[in-house]
Amino acid sequence: MAEAHAVKRTGSTLDLRPVLTILGFLICGTGVLMIVPAMFDLATGSGSEAFEVAAAVALGLGVMLITANRGCGPLTTLRQTYLLTFLAWLLVPGVAALPLVFSSLQMTFTDAFFETMSGMTTTGSTVLIGLDELAPSVLLWRGLLQWVGGLGIIVMAIAIMPLLRSGGMQLFHAESSDRSDKPLARVSQLAFSLCAVYFGLTVVCAFAYRLAGMTWFDAAVHSMTTLSTGGYSNHDASFGYFASASIDWIAIVFMLAGAVPFLLILRAARGDGASLVHDQQVRIMLLVALLTAAALAVPLVAQRDIPIDQAVREAAFNVTSILTTTGFASTDYGTWGPFATATFFYLMFIGGCTGSTSGAIKIFRFQVLYIVLSSYTLHRFTPHLVISRTYGDKPLSQDVAEGVMAFLALYFATVGLIAVVLGALGLDWLTALSGAVQAVGNIGPGLGEAIGPAGNFAGLPDGAKWALVAGMLSGRLELFTVLVVLTPSFWK
Amino acid sequence: MAEAHAVKRTGSTLDLRPVLTILGFLICGTGVLMIVPAMFDLATGSGSEAFEVAAAVALGLGVMLITANRGCGPLTTLRQTYLLTFLAWLLVPGVAALPLVFSSLQMTFTDAFFETMSGMTTTGSTVLIGLDELAPSVLLWRGLLQWVGGLGIIVMAIAIMPLLRSGGMQLFHAESSDRSDKPLARVSQLAFSLCAVYFGLTVVCAFAYRLAGMTWFDAAVHSMTTLSTGGYSNHDASFGYFASASIDWIAIVFMLAGAVPFLLILRAARGDGASLVHDQQVRIMLLVALLTAAALAVPLVAQRDIPIDQAVREAAFNVTSILTTTGFASTDYGTWGPFATATFFYLMFIGGCTGSTSGAIKIFRFQVLYIVLSSYTLHRFTPHLVISRTYGDKPLSQDVAEGVMAFLALYFATVGLIAVVLGALGLDWLTALSGAVQAVGNIGPGLGEAIGPAGNFAGLPDGAKWALVAGMLSGRLELFTVLVVLTPSFWK
Repeated sequence: MAEAHAVKRTGSTLDLRPVLTILGFLICGTGVLMIVPAMFDLATGSGSEAFEVAAAVALGLGVMLITANRGCGPLTTLRQTYLLTFLAWLLVPGVAALPLVFSSLQMTFTDAFFETMSGMTTTGSTVLIGLDELAPSVLLWRGLLQWVGGLGIIVMAIAIMPLLRSGGMQLFHAESSDRSDKPLARVSQLAFSLCAVYFGLTVVCAFAYRLAGMTWFDAAVHSMTTLSTGGYSNHDASFGYFASASIDWIAIVFMLAGAVPFLLILRAARGDGASLVHDQQVRIMLLVALLTAAALAVPLVAQRDIPIDQAVREAAFNVTSILTTTGFASTDYGTWGPFATATFFYLMFIGGCTGSTSGAIKIFRFQVLYIVLSSYTLHRFTPHLVISRTYGDKPLSQDVAEGVMAFLALYFATVGLIAVVLGALGLDWLTALSGAVQAVGNIGPGLGEAIGPAGNFAGLPDGAKWALVAGMLSGRLELFTVLVVLTPSFWK
Repeated sequence: MAEAHAVKRTGSTLDLRPVLTILGFLICGTGVLMIVPAMFDLATGSGSEAFEVAAAVALGLGVMLITANRGCGPLTTLRQTYLLTFLAWLLVPGVAALPLVFSSLQMTFTDAFFETMSGMTTTGSTVLIGLDELAPSVLLWRGLLQWVGGLGIIVMAIAIMPLLRSGGMQLFHAESSDRSDKPLARVSQLAFSLCAVYFGLTVVCAFAYRLAGMTWFDAAVHSMTTLSTGGYSNHDASFGYFASASIDWIAIVFMLAGAVPFLLILRAARGDGASLVHDQQVRIMLLVALLTAAALAVPLVAQRDIPIDQAVREAAFNVTSILTTTGFASTDYGTWGPFATATFFYLMFIGGCTGSTSGAIKIFRFQVLYIVLSSYTLHRFTPHLVISRTYGDKPLSQDVAEGVMAFLALYFATVGLIAVVLGALGLDWLTALSGAVQAVGNIGPGLGEAIGPAGNFAGLPDGAKWALVAGMLSGRLELFTVLVVLTPSFWK
């Protein structure tokens, strides 16, 4: 049988205690975060104690994990890092789901976990109907989860993923010669700066929304879900509720900001704006957004007699929303016809830049793919030619090229697998396929009536919700993190 | 900018004369082949002279090309081989379209070229409605084109593709150390044996069909379109017309035979049946067919009260038809529900074995993908481990691995591009996407009402037909052959 087998094996056992300790701290952090909506409930006199109870449970669980494993050493191996990353993104949303189960919404754990996984992975698919009448504390919790999730993604993408060297991410490893086994040691210094930039942009976005007419509460929640390219809204009609051109354009700007490499925004904040402006990923992303929006705006004007400014805005808003994997909708683009449906479908694969909060395949992988395909093609008819491959000013190593190609193949395989499961559960083909694509791409809405921009995930069977949760988690962890942990030999 | 650039270049000019000479011979051959349906027209007294006129034109054109380039040397370079392969598959269907234009059908060149390209690439999509009333000479011509096309594909896959070393096909290069620059010298000896096996199987299939109740004419044409995994039928209802269990099962057996590596059938004919039985590609293909058919048969029995034997046969027939990229239909499986639609959609990507007449991605590439993904995953958490990769008993080289990955990426990109073009031309999303998938996979029917198993391609706009023609040609030439010829630096 065709196979890949290990020739030699180092027999170290997997020490779980450092992993459990850090998980304990993360769960405690989740509990602390619950105090914000709990205080909101107190202040508005809603009488709900769901967040207080959940916070107590979370803190208890977290402290238990920490004390049970006290005295253990730091995280030292790659395997521990993989396992921690996987478990953190699985358990934290699980704990974050508790307030929704305890609240007057009386959500099932499936629904609550779907909502919080969708939130923390900044996907934005929702099972909640009647958002406009929902308790403000719950809306705030959804916004906070996306905002914190976004921060976690940036830190993970910049500090952890390059160390794991998976899916070609090592291209963005600042010191590629340094194979440190202590990833968490490097994180703290960067994390503070990134946190400051992320927080600053969110505040600016919130003020802009407020000035453009949102209430303070809407401005706060929507700025958090914009910068994190999450896409949760306080209204069933999403941005269609505001019906405001200026609010739409503000969202476009800050969705794009959320899809740009945050290290470049950090540099720009320190005075080096040139790196941001000249970055290949950023340029291509803007070009794709511009061209796609133009291609969709033309038929809106020509065939539907929509005024030019409105057509341009609606096309730009919804294209930016899907390209950056945010998932807001300003209108039901499901009614724009087959060309628009096809375009949005393909847009769902692309995503923003690496090192941002956006999901999907991401621009740099398409660039690497282009380089690999053109050098491969050139090599077909000039086999004796020496061909050098570069990405920007860096040489493109065989390892990165293979990582990107493997990622792409795994991406399509994962989407296909989840779509088959959704199809087997009885979902129609457009819902099943677009549902799988949007979940793995961490986008939010799919296509078709059920889960399109005007739809809702509440009506899906429980099995479909779990399949989508698996898709969101896999996509957010760049696939290989999940595949590695699911490999039997990982546990030997 | 990210790019791949050549460091050094050999400045040889491209000598077109050997290419044009061989094209002349191929066009003459096409003209000679037209004599068969011409004689058929004479014998049946139909009065049509379309095939005679077209044969004269083809022979004139062919002889002109040969004489104009007489005295030129043999084919010597890789670039000539690429160009010849591309032009042969473009021009021969163009010449083969002439009788359809000249005939009483008065087809436009677009329709006629679509039909012959679909025929020679053994795709099987048709624009002809009312096949049951069509002139027998035209039906025979369609069958002959698929049969000859299938033979061309086998010779190309075994003798030319490994030399071009594209898409991982060099894995099947018998003498991988021999980088001969005279590919056509090796072809003739193999071609005769393969031709004999192919012809023998077709004759056996025809007799089996006849015994099971087909007319001699139907048996002859359908055996040619079965072995070539082409899928043209003499009836609008395809195999549904015969409504015969034994005919269906015969078709299943010979469609599978057409999707098996022909070198292995040749070996089996010489007494070495073990190679065929133990081949990894063959085993996996049969396993996929079995599992998929079972998965589709169960709901047919459980939910639709279809008798078990009929459900098993219909599932087996249509799954085998799509998996082997033949494209016959025994019933309209478009009505089997969303799970079946999703399953057939994925099945369209898979295809049979390399070295057969079937199209699509093919089993061996999925096997290589599995090896690459598992070794890559293993390497993530054991970076210092030496991992050896083998396919069967051969080492899997970096070059083959990269070729397969590049092929997969290009495959999805090509499908996506053609689907976008089809969508822009106004086709609905299911038609556009499944149309692109079936064209690049050389299958025949797509999904949805318009082009599904009960549909027809006649109603599509001309632009869509040309886009599908481009898809069929690209898919048949394993993508890179087309991409190489379209690369600007190929012509420098």
